[in-house]
Amino acid sequence: MPDQPPAQKLAGIFTPNMTPLDERGDINEAELRRYVDWLIDHGVHGLYPNGSTGEFTRFTPEERRRIVQIICDQTRGRVPVLAGAAEANVRETLRACEAYKQYGARAVAIVSPFYYRLSPGAVLAYFREIALNSPIDVTLYNIPMFASPIDVPTLQRLAELPRIIGMKDSSGDVAQMLRMMAAVQPHRPDFAFLAGWEAVLVPMLLMGCSGGTHATSGIVPEATRKIFDLTTSGQYQKARPLQLKLIELFDRIVYGADFPEGIRAAVELRGFKLGASRQPPNPEQRIDRAELERLINDLLKMAKSIE
Amino acid sequence: MPDQPPAQKLAGIFTPNMTPLDERGDINEAELRRYVDWLIDHGVHGLYPNGSTGEFTRFTPEERRRIVQIICDQTRGRVPVLAGAAEANVRETLRACEAYKQYGARAVAIVSPFYYRLSPGAVLAYFREIALNSPIDVTLYNIPMFASPIDVPTLQRLAELPRIIGMKDSSGDVAQMLRMMAAVQPHRPDFAFLAGWEAVLVPMLLMGCSGGTHATSGIVPEATRKIFDLTTSGQYQKARPLQLKLIELFDRIVYGADFPEGIRAAVELRGFKLGASRQPPNPEQRIDRAELERLINDLLKMAKSIE
Amino acid sequence: MPDQPPAQKLAGIFTPNMTPLDERGDINEAELRRYVDWLIDHGVHGLYPNGSTGEFTRFTPEERRRIVQIICDQTRGRVPVLAGAAEANVRETLRACEAYKQYGARAVAIVSPFYYRLSPGAVLAYFREIALNSPIDVTLYNIPMFASPIDVPTLQRLAELPRIIGMKDSSGDVAQMLRMMAAVQPHRPDFAFLAGWEAVLVPMLLMGCSGGTHATSGIVPEATRKIFDLTTSGQYQKARPLQLKLIELFDRIVYGADFPEGIRAAVELRGFKLGASRQPPNPEQRIDRAELERLINDLLKMAKSIE
Amino acid sequence: MPDQPPAQKLAGIFTPNMTPLDERGDINEAELRRYVDWLIDHGVHGLYPNGSTGEFTRFTPEERRRIVQIICDQTRGRVPVLAGAAEANVRETLRACEAYKQYGARAVAIVSPFYYRLSPGAVLAYFREIALNSPIDVTLYNIPMFASPIDVPTLQRLAELPRIIGMKDSSGDVAQMLRMMAAVQPHRPDFAFLAGWEAVLVPMLLMGCSGGTHATSGIVPEATRKIFDLTTSGQYQKARPLQLKLIELFDRIVYGADFPEGIRAAVELRGFKLGASRQPPNPEQRIDRAELERLINDLLKMAKSIE
Repeated sequence: MPDQPPAQKLAGIFTPNMTPLDERGDINEAELRRYVDWLIDHGVHGLYPNGSTGEFTRFTPEERRRIVQIICDQTRGRVPVLAGAAEANVRETLRACEAYKQYGARAVAIVSPFYYRLSPGAVLAYFREIALNSPIDVTLYNIPMFASPIDVPTLQRLAELPRIIGMKDSSGDVAQMLRMMAAVQPHRPDFAFLAGWEAVLVPMLLMGCSGGTHATSGIVPEATRKIFDLTTSGQYQKARPLQLKLIELFDRIVYGADFPEGIRAAVELRGFKLGASRQPPNPEQRIDRAELERLINDLLKMAKSIE
Repeated sequence: MPDQPPAQKLAGIFTPNMTPLDERGDINEAELRRYVDWLIDHGVHGLYPNGSTGEFTRFTPEERRRIVQIICDQTRGRVPVLAGAAEANVRETLRACEAYKQYGARAVAIVSPFYYRLSPGAVLAYFREIALNSPIDVTLYNIPMFASPIDVPTLQRLAELPRIIGMKDSSGDVAQMLRMMAAVQPHRPDFAFLAGWEAVLVPMLLMGCSGGTHATSGIVPEATRKIFDLTTSGQYQKARPLQLKLIELFDRIVYGADFPEGIRAAVELRGFKLGASRQPPNPEQRIDRAELERLINDLLKMAKSIE
Repeated sequence: MPDQPPAQKLAGIFTPNMTPLDERGDINEAELRRYVDWLIDHGVHGLYPNGSTGEFTRFTPEERRRIVQIICDQTRGRVPVLAGAAEANVRETLRACEAYKQYGARAVAIVSPFYYRLSPGAVLAYFREIALNSPIDVTLYNIPMFASPIDVPTLQRLAELPRIIGMKDSSGDVAQMLRMMAAVQPHRPDFAFLAGWEAVLVPMLLMGCSGGTHATSGIVPEATRKIFDLTTSGQYQKARPLQLKLIELFDRIVYGADFPEGIRAAVELRGFKLGASRQPPNPEQRIDRAELERLINDLLKMAKSIE
Repeated sequence: MPDQPPAQKLAGIFTPNMTPLDERGDINEAELRRYVDWLIDHGVHGLYPNGSTGEFTRFTPEERRRIVQIICDQTRGRVPVLAGAAEANVRETLRACEAYKQYGARAVAIVSPFYYRLSPGAVLAYFREIALNSPIDVTLYNIPMFASPIDVPTLQRLAELPRIIGMKDSSGDVAQMLRMMAAVQPHRPDFAFLAGWEAVLVPMLLMGCSGGTHATSGIVPEATRKIFDLTTSGQYQKARPLQLKLIELFDRIVYGADFPEGIRAAVELRGFKLGASRQPPNPEQRIDRAELERLINDLLKMAKSIE
């Protein structure tokens, strides 16, 4: 495509959105569309369906496609869609990549192989095979607590493939992110580093990330947008109190309940019907909705008050 | 079913078999049937398709059913089939349970929720929902290195459900297995504890396991059978040298290559065409087939020589 | 020493004894001597001062020597003393070795380097330097949860040094113990493998350990002796219920309180005044002495009832 | 001391200095004094003897005192001394605190209890006992990879004690540092947070640390000083390339050799005779001195070139 301008570097806050379910446990399309509109209206820079927050492992392959299709259709180009495309194996994943390209996604995000913990060489071979055959741009998704880690030499070699345009890191390890940037940025200034752990959103942005994918942006998009805008415009000291408060919300949803049930509860507090989880409810766990609501309100108020 | 005799406790060595693929990467049914016959002829007590060794995560839901169907059909009741039935969520898993019952499986094995690390309460809720609705006996599959751990209190409560008839543990933690036995056996003498880590097969059998599911039984079924027979007949001192040699093979296939590529290579050395892995080959990893062959031959010779 | 008979392989249950303190927090020599006598009278095969249970890190170098001196003096050869001799560096450790030899210890036990996590090569160099210069037999002490792990190749090379006569392993990893035995026993049949994790005492003895060092033997020496005698005389099935009950006690003292406060409480229940811990009391932790007492009584009764 | 002005908050880069040894393995006082002078002349804000880099565990209690005495004497008030004072138990530690106060140290640093992994309540009790009895200001030293972690609620409660004036954190976890600041700063604006992991020095300073203790400041004090000055004066973008290069040096000394042998080699490259390590040399480990030298020179050149 020689005539096409180079695609813009991925930047901003992408929401790894949850998918509302109806009373039978199926995808609630109307509510999903309403949620997408609300997120865009409240400032998110992009959508990221089929992420960890989006419970991609709990949907069937057909459902995962349906979710991306609805979201691409609903966004209608207003914001880019980064579609989670990991399937059972490379062949199935490539089929999803083709479908998501047709739906209009900007790129796909592919989590490192999970269940088995694979060695760096196997992680490299896996992403390489996908990148060489994908019809759509690929971002790597590094989440060592759930999947095989992507290490620095592996990333460095993968960044030689033009189809791979960025990496989302959910380790929260700022030092490791700096090592990755040092290895890749000299050769690939267009390569996007996306932070995936909002507890360090401000330092990650200060140190060179162009954005992030954050579950909390599906709850308080106003606040994550404000943090992004302040930090990227040189006002990180103003962003710092918001960052500290965001950690409180983040810790509560991440450590206070089985993932992602805290997020489900919080999104519902913003007015969306997400339906019952596909994971049977854990009777030993009660989410303190009043506390969640207080934190959300604090964040919204604080975000509003900072100029 | 008042007239039916109580089902026998699961016992013996079950093979978590790999599934041969053809040149296009699809299930090679003929070779799978040939492999099943060979395993039965060489002394395995049961088959266990769709286990971790069987790469269940790399097949589509349709393929997983096809694998169980072929194996149930081919075993024709000669040995029991324990069918891995974990799917994307409880609903899909129950559908698989129904299918596997119809195919003639003795029971299903369901791995603890993976990808997300869930709390004990959520693990309990998950298995409870399945056990209350499954039309077929259920065994729990505990493999903490890949999936949410099943802890002792959780197991104790799950063992109150008659549908749950056993647990396979792949932690290799003998002390933890003893704790589980202490919690469950007084109330459920019929509950089967199956060892899933052959490096401790002899001590696990000595301490109360009725059997195990072992990848090496798909490579050297003669040796694992011999270990089982010797140990359960009071001759564990004779089984000890076999156990030490089995660890050598086990370590080589588990730590010497990305799981389960070492097993694939070893099964091929016994004369089966397993085809190329669905995981693209890792060029940094070369499996020493000569060493594998030497270990296999040592084990077979040793197994033969011990009366 | 051509005229001397070869020293006997270390065997049996060694007690890593705690050291009683008086009201000023100093060593209570009289009570220590009384405790040593009681332990010997109740069947322990040896004493092991300055172990982890003995809080060696909380005493000064001078106090550590005094403890060994008192114990050697009090045992008067009735049972062998295995003296913990790790000091700040090799030079200081060797000085302790010399002193302990003079006091009459059978051997020293030296924990792998701790605080820093050293690589296998450094662990090897450390023990090698000590073994080449020690005037007294050395046992290695592997406790990966607190100190640099001793891996199999390292142990194999250390076992080439005649001064090193055994290893105590507190990992509780039966498979790893088997790997170590496979590496060492063919060349060193005299090398003693001592189990240091009583939750797997029976399986460790069955698989080739000649004994163990167990904190619980300082609480219920009658029971650990009975387990040892039953298991080493082919009656492991009779030892199994005692093993399961011992795990209950072990779990309570290890996981129920900051180590080794549970052991302190339990030893006091047997009639010894251990004094206040040098670690300031944790007000958030209350040890359930009634439950401890119940477990101790159960174990004693059970040990008595089994012939 | 009612007439004294409140002590200033700890700030700047403190060097956890190594201690030179002579040919007999004893403290080389002359070289230590020369090294201290050089560090001060090259811009470090303070000294920190008996830290992890300073191998405090490998010296005897008497040697640890001697080291602090020499350093306090040599600095003669030019820079503050933060003296590592952890000894075998609270009583011994308090004696060291008294001595270090007399020597003229600004404060002591006390590592969380190590060897045993203690619970938060025990960590709290330990530091509390020390803080209530120490005649000199205390900083807490959190280094979870070597010692019992200090968690946020524990820190919050310890910060209620005026004697505790700061915390050094060597976890490198920026999110956790933010949580700690959020818990403490509202009540204790004077409390110093010191970063102890130079791979994240810039982000830690940006997010609220007043300084740090960094082994690399003992090698390239010019560069760490430049990073500190640039970052604290709003020029963090200029500090970023230095930070990335510092990580290269840091990784090489931390992951390239048994700690702290890489630092020993690097300090020697700056012209100091540190002598042979007390840990016997690991023959499997060769430190690439040429590469170390190249990194040091790169850092020095880069530091000089940035205005």
